[in-house]
Amino acid sequence: MKIKEIKGGVCAPQGFKANGVHCGIRKNKIKKDFALIVSSVRASAAGVYTQNLVKGAPVIVTKKHLTDGYAQAIIVNSGNANTCNSNGIEIAEGMCGMVERKSGISADDVIVGSTGVIGQKLDLTPMLEHFDELYDGLGDNSSAAAEAIMTTDTVRKEVAVEFILDGKKCRIGGIAKGVGMVCPNMATNLIFLTSDVAISPAMLQKALSNDVKSSFNMVSVDGDQSTNDTCCILANGLAGNSIISGDGASYKRFAKALNYCTVKLSKMLAKDGEGATKLIECQTVGAKSLKIARTVCKSVIKSSLFKAAMFGSDANWGRVLCAIGYSGANVDVQKIDVTFLSRAGSVKVCEDGYGLDFSEELAKKVLSEDEVTVLIYLKSGNFSATAWGCDLTYDYVKINGDYRT
Amino acid sequence: MKIKEIKGGVCAPQGFKANGVHCGIRKNKIKKDFALIVSSVRASAAGVYTQNLVKGAPVIVTKKHLTDGYAQAIIVNSGNANTCNSNGIEIAEGMCGMVERKSGISADDVIVGSTGVIGQKLDLTPMLEHFDELYDGLGDNSSAAAEAIMTTDTVRKEVAVEFILDGKKCRIGGIAKGVGMVCPNMATNLIFLTSDVAISPAMLQKALSNDVKSSFNMVSVDGDQSTNDTCCILANGLAGNSIISGDGASYKRFAKALNYCTVKLSKMLAKDGEGATKLIECQTVGAKSLKIARTVCKSVIKSSLFKAAMFGSDANWGRVLCAIGYSGANVDVQKIDVTFLSRAGSVKVCEDGYGLDFSEELAKKVLSEDEVTVLIYLKSGNFSATAWGCDLTYDYVKINGDYRT
Repeated sequence: MKIKEIKGGVCAPQGFKANGVHCGIRKNKIKKDFALIVSSVRASAAGVYTQNLVKGAPVIVTKKHLTDGYAQAIIVNSGNANTCNSNGIEIAEGMCGMVERKSGISADDVIVGSTGVIGQKLDLTPMLEHFDELYDGLGDNSSAAAEAIMTTDTVRKEVAVEFILDGKKCRIGGIAKGVGMVCPNMATNLIFLTSDVAISPAMLQKALSNDVKSSFNMVSVDGDQSTNDTCCILANGLAGNSIISGDGASYKRFAKALNYCTVKLSKMLAKDGEGATKLIECQTVGAKSLKIARTVCKSVIKSSLFKAAMFGSDANWGRVLCAIGYSGANVDVQKIDVTFLSRAGSVKVCEDGYGLDFSEELAKKVLSEDEVTVLIYLKSGNFSATAWGCDLTYDYVKINGDYRT
Repeated sequence: MKIKEIKGGVCAPQGFKANGVHCGIRKNKIKKDFALIVSSVRASAAGVYTQNLVKGAPVIVTKKHLTDGYAQAIIVNSGNANTCNSNGIEIAEGMCGMVERKSGISADDVIVGSTGVIGQKLDLTPMLEHFDELYDGLGDNSSAAAEAIMTTDTVRKEVAVEFILDGKKCRIGGIAKGVGMVCPNMATNLIFLTSDVAISPAMLQKALSNDVKSSFNMVSVDGDQSTNDTCCILANGLAGNSIISGDGASYKRFAKALNYCTVKLSKMLAKDGEGATKLIECQTVGAKSLKIARTVCKSVIKSSLFKAAMFGSDANWGRVLCAIGYSGANVDVQKIDVTFLSRAGSVKVCEDGYGLDFSEELAKKVLSEDEVTVLIYLKSGNFSATAWGCDLTYDYVKINGDYRT
């Protein structure tokens, strides 16, 4: 199956418009902080959310609005998470109400998201004042929306692909943000996906729920699971394929294209982790089960000691073994091989659980690249998994030492 | 019951001598790296160890030697963890053999520990060359032993107390090291305790196993559980109390004195965490169960985002709630109060799960102290727990970015 990357982000699929403006929630006068995505027709909708007991008000409202499996618009602010606020639900519903009053789309068909500081009152006023500007500017502006949902992100995260179903061109597009408080369990931070594929809400939810297990749930920047993690997808059917309403070839093709987008966004999220200088990809191969494969690479990618070693381009593979050992996964330590790889080459550092002699010079070169892979070969089965993270740097500490004040 | 702090560390209890010398495992020419503790008589002995699947060879050998519940000496090196080495067991047994040849104490009665880099060959030669110097210098040198087990520790960690059992003066002493790879589960890094109390091996093991749940297991520096965590205690009976061989008043008194020592060492370990500028104590009160109380404060103390905020003296309490929310503990978010306290005062920042207006100036003052407490009141029961950690700083990253090379 051919999956072609295209431009356009969330506006690549037919019928979707987007925009992002600065409304003033953020003190920074330039940074966009208010985003809107609208489909021309009502769309099948699915979502996965944070499992944190402390949930942002937008998560609660979005979940409620998606109960019937349909939605048509997505409204988001950055600069304030609207979480742990006594009037949070009212504010989140108020944001959906703005969309209804202007567009006629029912507030119940609006997905709402907020990201930023927890526990500070969020005032609707700046959003009310700028809603017309936001709405009237709707167009092929996926990038503006992607910018508006950024917090400490340093780059926009957008993706779009094209593929064929029943001879019809179909598209999936997405935007994402996520830099700190990134260790999702069910979803990560804010990710909004659009598609013109015709698919039932139930199958869309199934596809998304399965997908995040191998994409966003395998990303860790700092092990902190946000209160506002939300990943939603709208699929409006305008591509004209026969509606996907059960398993089968079309569902599989759609799932594959979706996974292409989510893995791409996952890597972008990891690479732009707060303070990160490099993307770390950790692959487990030869595991006895999928669970073991995932547990092992996620444990390594989360280790602060390993992450700091990666920042220093130090081939301290003992920390990889240490993180495998405390992961909880039942592995045979005497069978573990570890290899570091990047554009600059590869270096095997550990075989059967014991250290190998290796060139420190080559290892330094391999680890100094901005994308590094740690390959863990367990020699115990046929399952594999990949997790994505980043190095732990001075800048992570700096950014988070004074994020709020 | 009166517990009096005294000087002397592991040599405070009767019959214990210690020493530490530089033998040359570490490149640094001055730093002591070889330690020995000896009891004049065979002692009841107990240990708790890392649960990491990757275990250092010294852990395996020590466990074996303590099978019969008795030991008489402790030999330790720093600078090399003797872990993931194909001849690790042989080297660890070789260290015990040195003690036997010189002192006549059976190698099976020797506890062995190693701490430092994982996966580098450890050579017995420097230790063989300096063993006479180490042994001949045995005396009231707890501090030298405490120094010799340090790696990136910046201060020695020693404690000793005196208390009365059956009218007899009894003592417990201890030394510890632990700065990085500190998130124990059963024990933390290297901790060696001595006592002149008469107690059966079984009751000593019971006391130690119970104790670590509320002491060392509640410490986290970086969430990484070491491969070499070992906490051992020797109790040689020279105090002359009636031997403790079951539960009862004497056992309780001993357990209380032991906990005094282990909590004190726990706080030292946390405060000297790699790169730390302050000790963070997190107290949960009003929990429905002990498990919830412990889970909540340990989750907060482990959060990188919270730790970075503490470095910046930023009262970002949303991160406290976030960490409670993803801890897995079943708590009622709408009942959570959070207060920050230190010598400089106290400031309540969150009530019933929502933010309070508070003085940022006062909060900054409170959090700028070198010992800060976060009090989490769950208002759901009568259980409480305390965890200890430290802030996440530039220096943590610096130390761990080039620890090995």
